[in-house]
Amino acid sequence: MTQSKEPDHLQLNSQGRLRHFLTLDGLDRATLTEILDTADSFIEVGKRSIKNVPLLRGKTVVNLFFEASTRTRSTFELAAKRLSADVLNLNISTSATSKGESLSDTLQNLEAMASDMFVVRHSQSGAPHFIAESVTPNVSIINAGDGRHAHPTQAMLDMLTIRQHKGSFEGLKVAIVGDILHSRVARSQIRALNTLGVSEVRVIAPNTLLPVDIESLGATVYSTMKQGLDGVDVVIMLRLQKERMEGALLPSEHEFYELYGLTTEKLKYAKPDAIVMHPGPINRGVEIESAVADGPQSVILNQVTNGIAVRMAVMSMAMSGQTAAISAAASE
Amino acid sequence: MTQSKEPDHLQLNSQGRLRHFLTLDGLDRATLTEILDTADSFIEVGKRSIKNVPLLRGKTVVNLFFEASTRTRSTFELAAKRLSADVLNLNISTSATSKGESLSDTLQNLEAMASDMFVVRHSQSGAPHFIAESVTPNVSIINAGDGRHAHPTQAMLDMLTIRQHKGSFEGLKVAIVGDILHSRVARSQIRALNTLGVSEVRVIAPNTLLPVDIESLGATVYSTMKQGLDGVDVVIMLRLQKERMEGALLPSEHEFYELYGLTTEKLKYAKPDAIVMHPGPINRGVEIESAVADGPQSVILNQVTNGIAVRMAVMSMAMSGQTAAISAAASE
Amino acid sequence: MTQSKEPDHLQLNSQGRLRHFLTLDGLDRATLTEILDTADSFIEVGKRSIKNVPLLRGKTVVNLFFEASTRTRSTFELAAKRLSADVLNLNISTSATSKGESLSDTLQNLEAMASDMFVVRHSQSGAPHFIAESVTPNVSIINAGDGRHAHPTQAMLDMLTIRQHKGSFEGLKVAIVGDILHSRVARSQIRALNTLGVSEVRVIAPNTLLPVDIESLGATVYSTMKQGLDGVDVVIMLRLQKERMEGALLPSEHEFYELYGLTTEKLKYAKPDAIVMHPGPINRGVEIESAVADGPQSVILNQVTNGIAVRMAVMSMAMSGQTAAISAAASE
Repeated sequence: MTQSKEPDHLQLNSQGRLRHFLTLDGLDRATLTEILDTADSFIEVGKRSIKNVPLLRGKTVVNLFFEASTRTRSTFELAAKRLSADVLNLNISTSATSKGESLSDTLQNLEAMASDMFVVRHSQSGAPHFIAESVTPNVSIINAGDGRHAHPTQAMLDMLTIRQHKGSFEGLKVAIVGDILHSRVARSQIRALNTLGVSEVRVIAPNTLLPVDIESLGATVYSTMKQGLDGVDVVIMLRLQKERMEGALLPSEHEFYELYGLTTEKLKYAKPDAIVMHPGPINRGVEIESAVADGPQSVILNQVTNGIAVRMAVMSMAMSGQTAAISAAASE
Repeated sequence: MTQSKEPDHLQLNSQGRLRHFLTLDGLDRATLTEILDTADSFIEVGKRSIKNVPLLRGKTVVNLFFEASTRTRSTFELAAKRLSADVLNLNISTSATSKGESLSDTLQNLEAMASDMFVVRHSQSGAPHFIAESVTPNVSIINAGDGRHAHPTQAMLDMLTIRQHKGSFEGLKVAIVGDILHSRVARSQIRALNTLGVSEVRVIAPNTLLPVDIESLGATVYSTMKQGLDGVDVVIMLRLQKERMEGALLPSEHEFYELYGLTTEKLKYAKPDAIVMHPGPINRGVEIESAVADGPQSVILNQVTNGIAVRMAVMSMAMSGQTAAISAAASE
Repeated sequence: MTQSKEPDHLQLNSQGRLRHFLTLDGLDRATLTEILDTADSFIEVGKRSIKNVPLLRGKTVVNLFFEASTRTRSTFELAAKRLSADVLNLNISTSATSKGESLSDTLQNLEAMASDMFVVRHSQSGAPHFIAESVTPNVSIINAGDGRHAHPTQAMLDMLTIRQHKGSFEGLKVAIVGDILHSRVARSQIRALNTLGVSEVRVIAPNTLLPVDIESLGATVYSTMKQGLDGVDVVIMLRLQKERMEGALLPSEHEFYELYGLTTEKLKYAKPDAIVMHPGPINRGVEIESAVADGPQSVILNQVTNGIAVRMAVMSMAMSGQTAAISAAASE
């Protein structure tokens, strides 16, 4: 089993273990499966009377949010606290750190405070990579969403949810519906689904909301729900990022819903036991009908529960990989 | 000992124990006394070198404030931390959740994150009840103030303060002074005082600041301090909620102070050992003279100390009631 | 060994031990050395896998910031959490507490919540002293910066950094460069350096940025970098507090940098092994050249690391002094 070291050798230590978690690019099936297995064990912990484990006790986790997201920040804060870490929340407006030097100084200061992990959210694609390149060996970076590039914990919680409900990935047909172009999670999802061995990944979207390189990512394009949902096992709805769509040739909200909104009627095109996913928060009546969001095929709230477990998994694995890398370097 | 199950059966489990804490309505004397006794034990803990107890260790408490109140939020945050809980603070503007669906989605998401308790503050009366009706059995709701309806932990800390200073409730005469109409705590206080068996509850206010159903709540109305304070053991001053009084036929602040402000002179109408209470923050010179607020009969700071203990008490009791209810359901 | 009890007897208990930490005035060499030694031990703790110690377990630390400073607040928050304290962050706008009574009420309320320590930041000189005078024996005050008066933990982290790199203070020549007039830390630094026994303290600044009493503080004034830096072991750059300099006869930023900015060229006037310090955040190209800030003589990031350790030291010593004072009073 070989890990591709390019372009993401950054996030693996010399033993091929996670020490940052930046992207799903370059992670092989064994690593993704280890994340899912570790997350499964935290799902069990979440059901106990005492939900905390001491894996990050005495460690300092800094939530470094250059872009506000109460929802994502809360899930990382809870995950870190359940791992018994000390958590420092910092909201840093991008304007204050628009100069590269200043961002660099902020980071070096936080490192010097003996922080062990930065959870980074940034509006610019690649910011977590840039930070991971510059930090000392004593800090791990977790990507909590960067521009349109990636949101890898979101993609992994989706994978966990699929495995929970379908048992395995083999033979599955999965459709991703909506604004692929502006989604920071769609690319991560397509990557993960292919790595984990589903039989087909479909994207369903108007041409104006598709990136030009979509087929090279390993997805088949459909432009209608009728054809795209036909026989699928999993339907992943994306959120309409209204604020990201300026200038896009978007149909009206009403027209979008008519064509791509997931209704009870359209869901019938999928397999009878297909599951319905959405990253939240839901725009009811825009991307999805309430009857579907709250219906028996919806696993949307399972995704939320799985989000805590997946975040606990990648945080504990990255910390373990960091420790191993430091030990290895010390014994050289 | 029978608990009235209406209209607040919601907050008791099938064994008649607290599992939410929404209102004092429907709680009998035994339950109120148990809260006071439990709080007393936390008063002792607060005097120790190490003030924390592990009763909520591994539990997640979410401070869900739809209305900003740094003061109340801080007391709940401290109470939860002293119980060893993990605390997540969320300030949610009412505007963002004005649609019922959206509020419901927010709550379901927080439940799915395996939260164990929501401390809810809301400008609308009944919001904590609404939330308690909709949550799963794994979440307890604590009312931290809803509209004009109730602020039951405030009322209970007042009861604890009275019992500390007077030994028992029997034979006591208690006067509540000020803006009864807009107070979220006056109703809770009147209810608790009657349940705990004081001999007389008086309200002293101009007619324009009295609710129409005041006498049916179990209080006698007085319109002058001279008559109302005559021979009382306890004087509870209310805070002038200036922001709530729009359109009310309020006398000027100066006139209000002349008629209803608690001065050294007016306090002489009460018993010589009468205690003076105020929920804070104090508007000195509006509701109360500084010499009285800081004087020997004032127990205002004891109320603050008792506030932490009462909040620890209801949080630990509700968690215990939740656990018992889940166990009972599992063994059915 | 005698402690001067004036004007700062406030911060020492009857055994001469710290119970508040307000200023370096009146602290003798033995006390400053004890702070440095204690901080050294926490530097060791910071290198461990588990960085937390239980010295403040079960204690409540309130970060009471009347002036926003994310950076300083974060270091105190981390220090308190590494001591296992519960931390409450309160940002209080000065306007809301402009009346003395209201500030006093806020403090009394926080005391009544059984807080053990207030970390106070205030734009007015003397505010932490004022607060220390008014609190009960159960609260310790730590000065996190007050107006132009003092920033004693900053000065002590500077002393720790000097001792780490130079071994001792004996025989050292130290230059402080920049806006002495508006600096809250320069006075504390001059005091500490003299108490700890350096051979010479110099200040380098234009006359317009010097306080009138500067020589009485124990510093020699230089107006050029060439003369002032000649043969020094330590160069302490101050931050240009642009917002504090309104109306001052300040040369332009460009002119200031020409005359007083620390460049590679000017640094050559100092000893070859001189260290360069700066409290951060750095205005690169205003007070200091990037090549110097990031160069081999810079110990700026060590200062940050030492800041956590010094804050842990004074917090744990003040708590210990508080406990001893309470015990002594109880046994009288």
